[in-house]
Amino acid sequence: MPQTENQTQVTDRPQATKTAILVIGGAEDKVHGKEILQTFWQCAGGTDAIIGIIPSASREPALIGERYYRIFADMGAKEIKVLDVRDRDGGRDSAYLHYVENCTGIFMTGGDQLRLCGLLADTPLMNLVVERVRAQEIALAGTSAGAAVMGHQMIAGGSSGECPNRALVDLAMGLGIIPEVLVDQHFHNRNRLARLLSAISAHSDLLGVGIDEDTCAMFDSDRNLQVLGRGTVTIVDARDISYTNQNQVHGADPISIHNLKLHVLRYGDRYNLEGHQVIASS
Amino acid sequence: MPQTENQTQVTDRPQATKTAILVIGGAEDKVHGKEILQTFWQCAGGTDAIIGIIPSASREPALIGERYYRIFADMGAKEIKVLDVRDRDGGRDSAYLHYVENCTGIFMTGGDQLRLCGLLADTPLMNLVVERVRAQEIALAGTSAGAAVMGHQMIAGGSSGECPNRALVDLAMGLGIIPEVLVDQHFHNRNRLARLLSAISAHSDLLGVGIDEDTCAMFDSDRNLQVLGRGTVTIVDARDISYTNQNQVHGADPISIHNLKLHVLRYGDRYNLEGHQVIASS
Repeated sequence: MPQTENQTQVTDRPQATKTAILVIGGAEDKVHGKEILQTFWQCAGGTDAIIGIIPSASREPALIGERYYRIFADMGAKEIKVLDVRDRDGGRDSAYLHYVENCTGIFMTGGDQLRLCGLLADTPLMNLVVERVRAQEIALAGTSAGAAVMGHQMIAGGSSGECPNRALVDLAMGLGIIPEVLVDQHFHNRNRLARLLSAISAHSDLLGVGIDEDTCAMFDSDRNLQVLGRGTVTIVDARDISYTNQNQVHGADPISIHNLKLHVLRYGDRYNLEGHQVIASS
Repeated sequence: MPQTENQTQVTDRPQATKTAILVIGGAEDKVHGKEILQTFWQCAGGTDAIIGIIPSASREPALIGERYYRIFADMGAKEIKVLDVRDRDGGRDSAYLHYVENCTGIFMTGGDQLRLCGLLADTPLMNLVVERVRAQEIALAGTSAGAAVMGHQMIAGGSSGECPNRALVDLAMGLGIIPEVLVDQHFHNRNRLARLLSAISAHSDLLGVGIDEDTCAMFDSDRNLQVLGRGTVTIVDARDISYTNQNQVHGADPISIHNLKLHVLRYGDRYNLEGHQVIASS
């Protein structure tokens, strides 16, 4: 991978902001440059970082929690704790709540997004995380399942290899941290255009954000999205579509969508959520 | 598959025109309703049809030729011949040329598009086919590799599972039958958005046409494309993109493309190549 080349080519390297939300498409580099994880660690304060890892999406939370613990410890974070919530009671754990009150960054691992929301949505712990993210007091990152939960609507599952159709995607409530986005991860890697389009055709007011593996859409406090990593972020903007048959079809019937806008963004490219404008990496 | 349902639901069933060019995304139904093949057979004259099958894309031309022979014979075509060209000399065969002079339809099978072009591009036989198609004297269909060759530029091969990048797609000269399109087939089925975008970013004047399996983009003499079959046709219109870094990147570097227009068309939807307008199936 020409990742280091990439980094030297681009002059305006994406800037970390303390309050960033890093939405990661899964399979981020954990071994070499670790660019995305390093950026999160920097956002969270670098050597002053107090990081909470939420591994609850995974069925192997101890294993995956430990893996990220090691990575952030090696980077030199000041304090790290795995908030190993495995039932709804864990979302009220006072030691965990106390930790989140004082942390500077929260990292949500991959796994199953329904499991993550099922365990943590509307718990005091998650409410506190969301409150502190909204108050721009802490950095937040989520990868794969941890990315899927960012919107108000969430792609809970689905399949691929077919044209857009209603049976291709299951939607559920997400955590609503960035309410207006509808995230799909492992995007080009797992052939997810059709499922994102199937979802967006029913929610044309939302912004479809398809994130490739080892790629991150980093949202800053000015409502800009900036791309990090080695793949692309695909923006599906259906606000001005002229037609869809979405509400007339059933099951596997093909969904039409006319006049969609699409942006393929790479490292350094930015997209403004207010003005719906793209700014190329210079 | 709800294919028969589909057909009864749609009121304005796409009309066959004698001079149609049927660009098929591969794996078309050969067993049940055979809608797309039946439409080709009708365009070619139905029971008056004199059909030539070109199986040269395939490494098993006898087998695949025979299969389509059976299908069109069962439909009741008047005359069918497999034009089994296996070397450049075959493209000058006087019996084949004579047959093409008198036929009403030509069907090109799947296989390898480079093989098809290598054997037939610029031969008297293919020149005659193209001439008669342009003169609107015969119907033409191509499936899979037979679809890929329709444009002036052709996707010769590539891979999937990555973001758009130059290494993802190989381009070559096609047969130029519909010069302004760049076709990709098995589109959603084989995760080919990224490779079509990689190709289109370098040829933004061409219209990207991604055709799903058992789906057909039927081009009529009024330069309308109409969709048949059970999947979708994805139109990628890059004429008005605001930016691409395509000519600055190498190898697997991600390609940015900003402000693309995308249309997902289903059965009965139409797209006009002149006005670049979409008309929904009513």
